[in-house]
Amino acid sequence: MNLFYLVPIASLVALFFAYYFFRNMMKESEGTDQMKKIALYVREGAMSYLKQQYKVVTIVFIVLALIFAIMAYFGLQNNWVPFAFLTGGFFSGLAGFFGMKTATYASARTANAAQHSLNKGLQLAFRSGAVMGLVVVGLALLDISVWYLILDYFVDDAVTSHKLIMITTTMLTFGMGASTQALFARVGGGIYTKAADVGADLVGKVEAGIPEDDPRNPATIADNVGDNVGDVAGMGADLYESYCGSILATAALGASAFAANPIMQKNAVFAPMLIAAVGVFLSIFGIFLVRTDDDADMKKLMNALNRGVNVSAFLIAIFTFGILYLLGFENWIGISFSVISGLIAGIIIGQGTEYYTSHSYNPTKLIAKSGSTGPGTVIISGIGTGLISTFIPVVAIALAIMVAYLSAIGFDVQNLVSSGNLSMGLYGIGIAAVGMLSTLGITLATDAYGPIADNAGGNAEMCGLGSEVRERTDALDSLGNTTAATGKGFAIGSAALTALALLASYIEEIKIGMMRLGQDILTFANGDTLKTGEATFVDFMNYFQVTLMNPKVIVGIFLGSMMAFLFCGLTMNAVGRAAQEMVDEVRRQFRDIKGIMEGDATPDYARCVEISTKSAQREMLLPSLLAIAIPIAVGLLLGVAGVMGLLAGGLGSGFVLAVFMANAGGAWDNAKKYVEMGNYGGKGSDTHKATVVGDTVGDPFKDTSGPSLNILIKLMSMVSIVMAGLTVSWSLL
Amino acid sequence: MNLFYLVPIASLVALFFAYYFFRNMMKESEGTDQMKKIALYVREGAMSYLKQQYKVVTIVFIVLALIFAIMAYFGLQNNWVPFAFLTGGFFSGLAGFFGMKTATYASARTANAAQHSLNKGLQLAFRSGAVMGLVVVGLALLDISVWYLILDYFVDDAVTSHKLIMITTTMLTFGMGASTQALFARVGGGIYTKAADVGADLVGKVEAGIPEDDPRNPATIADNVGDNVGDVAGMGADLYESYCGSILATAALGASAFAANPIMQKNAVFAPMLIAAVGVFLSIFGIFLVRTDDDADMKKLMNALNRGVNVSAFLIAIFTFGILYLLGFENWIGISFSVISGLIAGIIIGQGTEYYTSHSYNPTKLIAKSGSTGPGTVIISGIGTGLISTFIPVVAIALAIMVAYLSAIGFDVQNLVSSGNLSMGLYGIGIAAVGMLSTLGITLATDAYGPIADNAGGNAEMCGLGSEVRERTDALDSLGNTTAATGKGFAIGSAALTALALLASYIEEIKIGMMRLGQDILTFANGDTLKTGEATFVDFMNYFQVTLMNPKVIVGIFLGSMMAFLFCGLTMNAVGRAAQEMVDEVRRQFRDIKGIMEGDATPDYARCVEISTKSAQREMLLPSLLAIAIPIAVGLLLGVAGVMGLLAGGLGSGFVLAVFMANAGGAWDNAKKYVEMGNYGGKGSDTHKATVVGDTVGDPFKDTSGPSLNILIKLMSMVSIVMAGLTVSWSLL
Repeated sequence: MNLFYLVPIASLVALFFAYYFFRNMMKESEGTDQMKKIALYVREGAMSYLKQQYKVVTIVFIVLALIFAIMAYFGLQNNWVPFAFLTGGFFSGLAGFFGMKTATYASARTANAAQHSLNKGLQLAFRSGAVMGLVVVGLALLDISVWYLILDYFVDDAVTSHKLIMITTTMLTFGMGASTQALFARVGGGIYTKAADVGADLVGKVEAGIPEDDPRNPATIADNVGDNVGDVAGMGADLYESYCGSILATAALGASAFAANPIMQKNAVFAPMLIAAVGVFLSIFGIFLVRTDDDADMKKLMNALNRGVNVSAFLIAIFTFGILYLLGFENWIGISFSVISGLIAGIIIGQGTEYYTSHSYNPTKLIAKSGSTGPGTVIISGIGTGLISTFIPVVAIALAIMVAYLSAIGFDVQNLVSSGNLSMGLYGIGIAAVGMLSTLGITLATDAYGPIADNAGGNAEMCGLGSEVRERTDALDSLGNTTAATGKGFAIGSAALTALALLASYIEEIKIGMMRLGQDILTFANGDTLKTGEATFVDFMNYFQVTLMNPKVIVGIFLGSMMAFLFCGLTMNAVGRAAQEMVDEVRRQFRDIKGIMEGDATPDYARCVEISTKSAQREMLLPSLLAIAIPIAVGLLLGVAGVMGLLAGGLGSGFVLAVFMANAGGAWDNAKKYVEMGNYGGKGSDTHKATVVGDTVGDPFKDTSGPSLNILIKLMSMVSIVMAGLTVSWSLL
Repeated sequence: MNLFYLVPIASLVALFFAYYFFRNMMKESEGTDQMKKIALYVREGAMSYLKQQYKVVTIVFIVLALIFAIMAYFGLQNNWVPFAFLTGGFFSGLAGFFGMKTATYASARTANAAQHSLNKGLQLAFRSGAVMGLVVVGLALLDISVWYLILDYFVDDAVTSHKLIMITTTMLTFGMGASTQALFARVGGGIYTKAADVGADLVGKVEAGIPEDDPRNPATIADNVGDNVGDVAGMGADLYESYCGSILATAALGASAFAANPIMQKNAVFAPMLIAAVGVFLSIFGIFLVRTDDDADMKKLMNALNRGVNVSAFLIAIFTFGILYLLGFENWIGISFSVISGLIAGIIIGQGTEYYTSHSYNPTKLIAKSGSTGPGTVIISGIGTGLISTFIPVVAIALAIMVAYLSAIGFDVQNLVSSGNLSMGLYGIGIAAVGMLSTLGITLATDAYGPIADNAGGNAEMCGLGSEVRERTDALDSLGNTTAATGKGFAIGSAALTALALLASYIEEIKIGMMRLGQDILTFANGDTLKTGEATFVDFMNYFQVTLMNPKVIVGIFLGSMMAFLFCGLTMNAVGRAAQEMVDEVRRQFRDIKGIMEGDATPDYARCVEISTKSAQREMLLPSLLAIAIPIAVGLLLGVAGVMGLLAGGLGSGFVLAVFMANAGGAWDNAKKYVEMGNYGGKGSDTHKATVVGDTVGDPFKDTSGPSLNILIKLMSMVSIVMAGLTVSWSLL
């Protein structure tokens, strides 16, 4: 029990350093009055969007919490669920809010710092990114430890092993709150930012021929606001969800895998929390490693960033051995290797992403080259490359799953899916995900500082700071893209592993639901009976006949695969519609407001911000609510087997689709940049125009639909888990 | 046994009518010398491509047959397998060859007939399409009945019920031959035709501003050849594969579902063959219904076509009741309703496709409208619409699966997945697929006549026949697109159901493989034992632990989902590369050969034909061989559970991806046509140019990658089935 207190301590330390970095950043100068003014515009736009967003989401949360309360009243859930759900959503929103607040204060300061040197710019942007990283992990561990202490105090169960299972599965509900908030943040923010971005690019860059972030472009403020609400607030909520999800799912698996041994059960529940807590200290250590001389060049800066990330990741692998040994795991070596398999998979995924999306390598260069035959071939080769790029991540994750599982069960291949091994193996998979996210404090910093640098560039451009500053912020931005690869690999890989762990938690929750409803005896098809409380995962799989030949499972797989596609389609079309509205408005302003192009008149920025806000709010509801409604509907129609199929199909297809969209989008973006660097005709050539079309298509791929998919997969699992009681008592088939 | 002879009789009748329609077509005039010359060019180009293609494929077939022979030598397969495999490939190739021969003879004749009236053009093109339809079903039933008779004569097994299981699973091998041939035909033909099409459009239409099929375009002959080798020969081999696959998979399921009752076992094997045989007669009846007055307008023509298709489909539903009753099925009503559920699902899928891809409805109109903001938004909204369009087909197929299954087991919901019900239910699903394809004789005619009309238009354009003829052939083509909806719905839906039936056949083949290798006793994890020969599907699922929580199954699902994406990526990029070569060559000719644009010099058509041929041959190998290699590799590494996961993941994700690609491609094509009809600025406007980009991207979507996916899914199953012996004896995990 003593070790547990490391978790709240780590949380407070993370929040303290977040505050410390924030204060230091605020001490820097925001630059000229003009820079302050622009930054204020963006900050106000972003905050007003977030307010609007939280209003809508609050209504959704209240409705869902009421449903849970009603379910609890009828014994379909326990009474803690509505509250846990609400706090998960609240903290997730808070993480996004703080992250965005920091980012919007940091952008002008970064631009100002970049006037001095590349290193100063890096330090400011990176430390601001670190605020977000530390806020996310700090709030997550706070939420986790407070809820654990509350539930530990109040939950009362005669059988000790039941108590921890109750506690951990209840805590999963706040994972659902976090996932719901994250999906809205990603979808709403994603639509907002891409509507503004696509709209600004199509009219500004392509039609009017003015540069990115030119103050004459009416959509330019909306575009910069979008970077904040989409890339910063959306990403914050997203990773808060991933981080909590992996820890909570693994804790729940630990509670059931070690149910036979009360002491080890508790330790198995603590293990993921402790790995995360130690990861916080290592992240802070890593953040302080990111420093270099003031006259450092790009290479030195990159080395500094990589050093921070790699040292933390390496150390967490080492420390895991120690943590698991101290907690008394019999197979501490094996489970540590589960964590290492996850870390290696994450690095491979990151490197694969890098290969397929960076313009240092052939695939992206070939996309740029295909621009010489027009936008059609750019799109074809981008889609082709994106589809092919799914190979490496899938093989990496497949290997990680097998190795994490096998190594957690001590390579007991003969009894691969025996009752004991199944829960141990899944615990190994879950803890591999925790390992990948444990250094989120620093990996998120490398990810979040990109949008800050991007916005600093926007500020520099709008205030006419001179091309040198813009070049530096661009360099910082592209540096961020490269160094973020590992962090992104961890985020993508952990999503797949966490979703898998949630699949197992679902069975656990079904068991609890049945016991709560008094279904104490399982009667199998062959007449055998078994006490529900004593049934293992394997027994439940047999009882619900979750084999691949069950038509309900097959139908579930079809529906799950389709859900991923449908969801992306809805968000893609939402961006398309919103972007068209934006294009019409920007064209109207160029036409109606005389003197914009000459710089004599100020465009109506506010109108564009309003359009983005309204369309994002309008369009985010349907796809997000579908993600909640479909698992419930499938549960009611097809029961447990159908839901398991849905989740497995959604996981397989959704993961691959997410990788495809992210990589195709990234490759198009960099192909365009490669041409802009002067290749194949350079800026203004027909090839360039063709690659701009690719970039436009890639925008919603990589920043709206793609990143939302990871959340979708997990949210569907979470919803199924929370609604398990409903499925058990009402399912039609 | 007497009823069985209906199958060879139906086969001969089909081939007779095919010959009869072919002779009648050949009697018509091919038009002017110029028309003959152009037709000859296209015919020669197509034939020379097919020869080249068959050479490469023959080598692949010989290598695979040798591998099977070696496997048979070591007792991993029976001795018939290599021969069955070869005939399947041979007949599939033959179906493509005859279909293409007919189409290339028919195009100039159709152009000539269209000079007289729309009806004359329709009759000629449709009857030529019918040749292909009847050749496909005739050859398939011939192959099936001859092999059945041979194996019935030679196979000797003490236990009667084993004999039929041996026969039907051996016959599945020729399904693998057909699938392999079909995949090569679709991929090779698809790359050929789209390289030529995209190349011709990009330089001819977009850069030089000359119309489609203009004789000044050096790629125009290659383009017309492509329509034949891709849309005609590829489609023929494809549907030959689907047709055989559905019948053979269902026969194999019948043999195992009714193993307890020798008479019913035989009848259950005959049932799918007989439904197909009766379907032949109904198709011929339907073909003769397609006639109208000589002064008929489009509406009348459409009604005539629909009448033919709908009457056949309606009658096969009725006749199924009779066939199953005569064969003595206890639950003949239930199984007939399985067939009806399949037919209804096919119709819904067809209507859904129609809604999302026809320019009579909003989705496609909105894509056209989005052209006003450039190609970027056209691509975004096309992809969005395509992704959303997966909803209807997936829900339709999910309902069909549940209804077909439940109705075949007499709605015995309590014992949904009991041993007896599982094989009965799967038999119901298989026979639903057979019902959908039973009237292929006519539905394929409505599908295949589109490319013939398209080619007729090309011929008319190149020979300067006047715009009226071109308008008529265009009208015929677009009529074909509309009426083909039902047929396409049947083809897509049946692919999913057949793949599902093959999943079950895989287990059957594993059983046979184990018995052949002397693994006569299954020892379960809990120590229970069971004779392999007496184990049911359910026992095998338990023995191999094919539950959704088995990490091997999960990894399989990931790999299967990825395979569909990877395969599409490879074919998309192949088209992209080949198209770029073509673009470079066409640009070179315009530049180097003086007087092309003025019509004074003839372009070097042959060079473009050669480029398409070479790139198709070069590029088709990798994706096709992957489809064969991956299931073998997964079988060797992850065993039966991994393969089942691979097939289920590939099925779910591949089906959805196929629908997405087909519908997005169709919608882009028709959005462009909608603009060309004078909407949103009409031909030559910027909106038009934007929609041409959409069409270019859609070409490989709908004609290369999308249609190949259906074959890929089934081929992976077939390969797993044929390689089952290897998996059983050598699997690592």
